[in-house]
Amino acid sequence: MRIDLNSDVGESFGAWKLGDDAALMPAISSANIACGFHGGDPGVMRETVALARAHGVAIGAHPGFPDLAGFGRRDLRCTPQDIEDMVVYQVGALAAFVAAQGGRLQHVKAHGALYNMACADATMAAAIARGTAAVDRSLILFGLPGSALLEAGLELGLPVAAEVFADRAYLTDGTLVPRSRPGSVITDESEVVSRAVRMATERTASTVEGNTIRLEAETLCVHGDTPGAARLARAIRLALERAGVTVQSLRDTKP
Amino acid sequence: MRIDLNSDVGESFGAWKLGDDAALMPAISSANIACGFHGGDPGVMRETVALARAHGVAIGAHPGFPDLAGFGRRDLRCTPQDIEDMVVYQVGALAAFVAAQGGRLQHVKAHGALYNMACADATMAAAIARGTAAVDRSLILFGLPGSALLEAGLELGLPVAAEVFADRAYLTDGTLVPRSRPGSVITDESEVVSRAVRMATERTASTVEGNTIRLEAETLCVHGDTPGAARLARAIRLALERAGVTVQSLRDTKP
Amino acid sequence: MRIDLNSDVGESFGAWKLGDDAALMPAISSANIACGFHGGDPGVMRETVALARAHGVAIGAHPGFPDLAGFGRRDLRCTPQDIEDMVVYQVGALAAFVAAQGGRLQHVKAHGALYNMACADATMAAAIARGTAAVDRSLILFGLPGSALLEAGLELGLPVAAEVFADRAYLTDGTLVPRSRPGSVITDESEVVSRAVRMATERTASTVEGNTIRLEAETLCVHGDTPGAARLARAIRLALERAGVTVQSLRDTKP
Amino acid sequence: MRIDLNSDVGESFGAWKLGDDAALMPAISSANIACGFHGGDPGVMRETVALARAHGVAIGAHPGFPDLAGFGRRDLRCTPQDIEDMVVYQVGALAAFVAAQGGRLQHVKAHGALYNMACADATMAAAIARGTAAVDRSLILFGLPGSALLEAGLELGLPVAAEVFADRAYLTDGTLVPRSRPGSVITDESEVVSRAVRMATERTASTVEGNTIRLEAETLCVHGDTPGAARLARAIRLALERAGVTVQSLRDTKP
Repeated sequence: MRIDLNSDVGESFGAWKLGDDAALMPAISSANIACGFHGGDPGVMRETVALARAHGVAIGAHPGFPDLAGFGRRDLRCTPQDIEDMVVYQVGALAAFVAAQGGRLQHVKAHGALYNMACADATMAAAIARGTAAVDRSLILFGLPGSALLEAGLELGLPVAAEVFADRAYLTDGTLVPRSRPGSVITDESEVVSRAVRMATERTASTVEGNTIRLEAETLCVHGDTPGAARLARAIRLALERAGVTVQSLRDTKP
Repeated sequence: MRIDLNSDVGESFGAWKLGDDAALMPAISSANIACGFHGGDPGVMRETVALARAHGVAIGAHPGFPDLAGFGRRDLRCTPQDIEDMVVYQVGALAAFVAAQGGRLQHVKAHGALYNMACADATMAAAIARGTAAVDRSLILFGLPGSALLEAGLELGLPVAAEVFADRAYLTDGTLVPRSRPGSVITDESEVVSRAVRMATERTASTVEGNTIRLEAETLCVHGDTPGAARLARAIRLALERAGVTVQSLRDTKP
Repeated sequence: MRIDLNSDVGESFGAWKLGDDAALMPAISSANIACGFHGGDPGVMRETVALARAHGVAIGAHPGFPDLAGFGRRDLRCTPQDIEDMVVYQVGALAAFVAAQGGRLQHVKAHGALYNMACADATMAAAIARGTAAVDRSLILFGLPGSALLEAGLELGLPVAAEVFADRAYLTDGTLVPRSRPGSVITDESEVVSRAVRMATERTASTVEGNTIRLEAETLCVHGDTPGAARLARAIRLALERAGVTVQSLRDTKP
Repeated sequence: MRIDLNSDVGESFGAWKLGDDAALMPAISSANIACGFHGGDPGVMRETVALARAHGVAIGAHPGFPDLAGFGRRDLRCTPQDIEDMVVYQVGALAAFVAAQGGRLQHVKAHGALYNMACADATMAAAIARGTAAVDRSLILFGLPGSALLEAGLELGLPVAAEVFADRAYLTDGTLVPRSRPGSVITDESEVVSRAVRMATERTASTVEGNTIRLEAETLCVHGDTPGAARLARAIRLALERAGVTVQSLRDTKP
């Protein structure tokens, strides 16, 4: 049994710090690095790439909407062409920092509203997949299991990875409970840890309606911008390893 | 006799148009494409790359200060590290669009205040050269003849190209008369054309003090954002060709 | 018979020019001046206020989404509090320029997607009305006749003005044909002029379905950013005056 | 004996938090609230105004360069007109939030590089003073004692306030040791406290060269964005009060 542990990092901007990336890195296997549109700036990108590489963590681009004030969490109705272009731009910029340090991008995970909208919207999903493929056809595209985003990646021949969230509540249709609803984020640490283990070992989760659903899970997201995020990530990793799950980035396992 | 004719293009942004790139392209051999910090946006970048490629024009990145409101023309005191990072980011983003269309970047020409400051400041020049080399050591770095920018490129082992401006007045020390001074821009079309020919054939220019100076000239900049820019560019190209000068991008001539 | 003629102006930004405000001003009675979020910058705001005052044109704030790259035309899902705050900020900033020149704001017209969304969404409409009232309860709020935006203004006790568009096609429910649909913008100049006269004199318009609808019309919008906009505005004004309609800003007619 | 205690607050932006304004407010008498160009956003501005008012703290605008990525700390060479306009815009925007809550602005303190440049540059200082006066001629302009900024305010007939920094090292000419030099910021808490008391009671400070200089001090700046800032501010206030100094905003003491 294997799983990748990913986290959103590099989301500081200028004088503003967000998250404790240095503490988080030892616990994860893949880092989604912000690319300057919703967070991150060129200096933060360079430093975060270096930090990931120092910890042997695989690097992905984390492109978002051009909405610093909203941290990329607000729906923005863009044309598919705009979305494709903003993905090329951001992934290309991050890829340059990675290559400059002798590395190579592993994956692309859209951020915030861009991710959520594209998981449900085939047109947006296709635009993200095209933008990703335009930069590098070997990049692994992340998305919710069964989402339009994964389908769009597969259709273009991209490698894809189904992503689950240990600290987010699920609906029976396999989508996340929206953040605007109470109970959308699970805050009890031991519950998060046990959900993570179950996702990795059984590929299932219990829903807010009380059902059990099957969830494809190749990569598990650990949030990095909450207090105690690094400790929680370490607890999840430890529990996974104790349960016999190998925590490993995808570049080692994807063909 | 050979010279490259370059122009700043792709400086529209969102709803705002600047210059007539389509009319200009047939006249030039190298295009400096804005990268989103002082002008240009992802869609404009993609379209301008396509336009340049359709005309067989070599493509360069035109990174600037992060100053949309000032169009990158205002001095901004950044650390060398910030400058290096902003060059990597912008050049990397443009390189992705070029590669997505099957092409390859030829050169890097800093924009506006970034160019002017770096031509005179060895520390800034070195930062731009490092950022350029970090992306691709085969990129040709543009700068004023004898400037700190060219020296910094040479020191890092980058190919460099000395750039002259047919429509800008020169001082006897070989620097440009600052835009803030009257007479800094030469507006008489026939004078601009004859200066261009002299620069390409004799490698000299007359200065505002009335002297003649020697100017290394591997690439000649034609401004693209003034009314009549395309017509002037065509007139310069025609006059150069009549004088026996081959107008040709640098990728064909640089080792 | 009276009507106000309004136009969106001051939408240049930095080095980028948009529209010919100087040519347009003599034809209109109210100017909606961009406030820096979708277009306009502090210098453009000052200059446009001066231009409007020189022509005796009443001044309104034209706040938009913080989306320069999309010119405020893309839907952005903000919280009501965010919308209220962005209205206070932008209207306050413009009011300072107007007061500095000895004038006073007449009205607030939301821009682009903010306007369109708020015309149909009572929660967003209420947020705009609250933001407007927070700055000055005497500001006249513009909106489509019968829209949520006008209702929200009335509910807060703000003066309101029903706005019609001579060059936009209407549906039978009184809403505009979305720009994404063919035929949404009427380009035939004589048709636009005759629709304007009919809107001002009969308060009616014909719809794309072929019906005639009644349209409250206190202010008529003339687009300023299309080629020939100033000429069209003059033609509309002339035709209105010939039809016996007084073109007059609202501050002269609202209690 | 009296002095005003001021601090820079409201410098969070979107998802990014900076400083602990709620803990700081009880200790200070005047708050310099960021206006969105270097930090702060409309929501942060509204909340910070409310927080200041809840603590009876006088409110000032803290306009900066349009440089989010550099937090307004990088020199940006703008024209005087640009500077005047950016001051009007930012002060006007903040004034709207203050007025919406029933209050009134007390002062204007330029931020970061804008402040430092204007203290030494009469042309920039005059531009800031004109922008301030354009919004409200009763606003108190802050600046270093003897600086061009104070002189420019006086020349325009604005009330001014000489500002000192308890935690910054001084040169014998009365200017601050630049942040780029070691020892520019005094970190020993008891030394900062005793310098503050001496500034308020004797109007003197010792310099890095070992001299004692006279420093006009009507308002004393306490930094709010460093760890322990609130505790230090409380310690300074307590020590001042024990030394018989009344800590009081300027609106109570300025004619």
